[in-house]
Amino acid sequence: MFCPGAGQFHKSSRPGFHPDPLQSLRMTQAVVITVSDSFSRGEREDLSGPAVAKVLESHGFDVQERISVPDERQAIEDALRSAAAHSRLVVTTGGTGISPRDVTPEATRAVCDRLLEGVAEVMRAEGRRETPLAALGRGLCGNIGASLVLNLPGSPRGAVTSLRAVLPLVGHALDLLAGKTEHDQGDPA
Amino acid sequence: MFCPGAGQFHKSSRPGFHPDPLQSLRMTQAVVITVSDSFSRGEREDLSGPAVAKVLESHGFDVQERISVPDERQAIEDALRSAAAHSRLVVTTGGTGISPRDVTPEATRAVCDRLLEGVAEVMRAEGRRETPLAALGRGLCGNIGASLVLNLPGSPRGAVTSLRAVLPLVGHALDLLAGKTEHDQGDPA
Amino acid sequence: MFCPGAGQFHKSSRPGFHPDPLQSLRMTQAVVITVSDSFSRGEREDLSGPAVAKVLESHGFDVQERISVPDERQAIEDALRSAAAHSRLVVTTGGTGISPRDVTPEATRAVCDRLLEGVAEVMRAEGRRETPLAALGRGLCGNIGASLVLNLPGSPRGAVTSLRAVLPLVGHALDLLAGKTEHDQGDPA
Repeated sequence: MFCPGAGQFHKSSRPGFHPDPLQSLRMTQAVVITVSDSFSRGEREDLSGPAVAKVLESHGFDVQERISVPDERQAIEDALRSAAAHSRLVVTTGGTGISPRDVTPEATRAVCDRLLEGVAEVMRAEGRRETPLAALGRGLCGNIGASLVLNLPGSPRGAVTSLRAVLPLVGHALDLLAGKTEHDQGDPA
Repeated sequence: MFCPGAGQFHKSSRPGFHPDPLQSLRMTQAVVITVSDSFSRGEREDLSGPAVAKVLESHGFDVQERISVPDERQAIEDALRSAAAHSRLVVTTGGTGISPRDVTPEATRAVCDRLLEGVAEVMRAEGRRETPLAALGRGLCGNIGASLVLNLPGSPRGAVTSLRAVLPLVGHALDLLAGKTEHDQGDPA
Repeated sequence: MFCPGAGQFHKSSRPGFHPDPLQSLRMTQAVVITVSDSFSRGEREDLSGPAVAKVLESHGFDVQERISVPDERQAIEDALRSAAAHSRLVVTTGGTGISPRDVTPEATRAVCDRLLEGVAEVMRAEGRRETPLAALGRGLCGNIGASLVLNLPGSPRGAVTSLRAVLPLVGHALDLLAGKTEHDQGDPA
């Protein structure tokens, strides 16, 4: 059973969603975690989480769950580890800024085996095409075993822009992490 | 009283400068630290510090002091901490290269609560438009509490280019660090 | 005598190569290390190592040796340290990807005095002009004393693209590391 240390659970609300074990084997499973004090208390409506889930689904991911956690490092770490235990892709939105309450990158760094600096660079570089302030984003990308963790900004527009910028990378990274370990000289890495 | 562990002090020499407590409440206070063995010994004239101060003042910052410290990590750390205790913006110039005496980034990393990798990326990326060698710059940006530390290169031209590239980011970062902590979904981070 | 902890040795096979002590004093010495399980076992032909050596030689480097080591962190660290002890430039190819066997960056980080983040950024940024997947490259650049270590991707094309992108930086970095330590205000760093 899926039970992070703190959080509020939403079943993915796609119309006509019927859990299908075979289907889930064919599609890459994803979890979207909204990191926000106010959303996790239900004080405000989360627009970013659903927007991120929609983009993922339109690219063939099976978004199993959307979770809200407060801006607490331990809660975020627990949610990341739990989500990565059963989903290949774990996407967060929120908590990547520079105010003291923003601790999503710190939690991500703590739980990941390795960071993929270049993915974070691409998110910032592409984000800067929309707003120079994207350079202040501290979102990271890294892996926990064969699962990938990706931190997106908290605004719906920023989250979607960043996600779209790195979706092709995400797919390739998931392939490599799944065991395409052999060194192919045609492989760019 | 402002007293870093090592250094030589210059009062900002703007003509007609009259300390004004109300004014200082309205303007963001800044300190410029020139990191250089030869400048701190007074063997050569520091051109970068004044050039940086001039740009800051033209953008509305109140440059309270310019300081020179040698390329000694402890002296730099002391100067950074002291300056951040009474000024919101602490800008260094020098000591960001790759020779063994260049230790400004190491001192900055040691005293900052967090680093803002994206700001350093922007300085290198914009600097590369003038010279490919800007890619060797190791300057960092980070915060100490609500104050921001920014490492600029040692050359007057490099320092001014890097500073101009990130000034809009600096202003926004100072706002966020000052307590605009609430997660606004319009916020790009 | 040159003897890393693990590896297979190839004498540089340039036609008409005659060791010349005076020549080697005038040219910057380089070592190319191919990191690959299969190449180090001789199961496949290494195309990247020779391609990298050729580019280096065409730019005036004296490629003293080409070495193959398996994707083992200790073997890579030993090879890097040994090579840096007698050559100013140590270039690796392979092991920079994200699969668990890719550990070249980890070995490089462990043996380097400092990392030059901007050089890695340039390799990824230039690589992305050929393929977006270059953003997944984790290759680093750093120094061991006055020697420079540069991690290139494992594919011949990726390795050559990355190398060409940073060769001007490499030359300048070697100059600075060799003792051009004085702060010149004309110096961009």
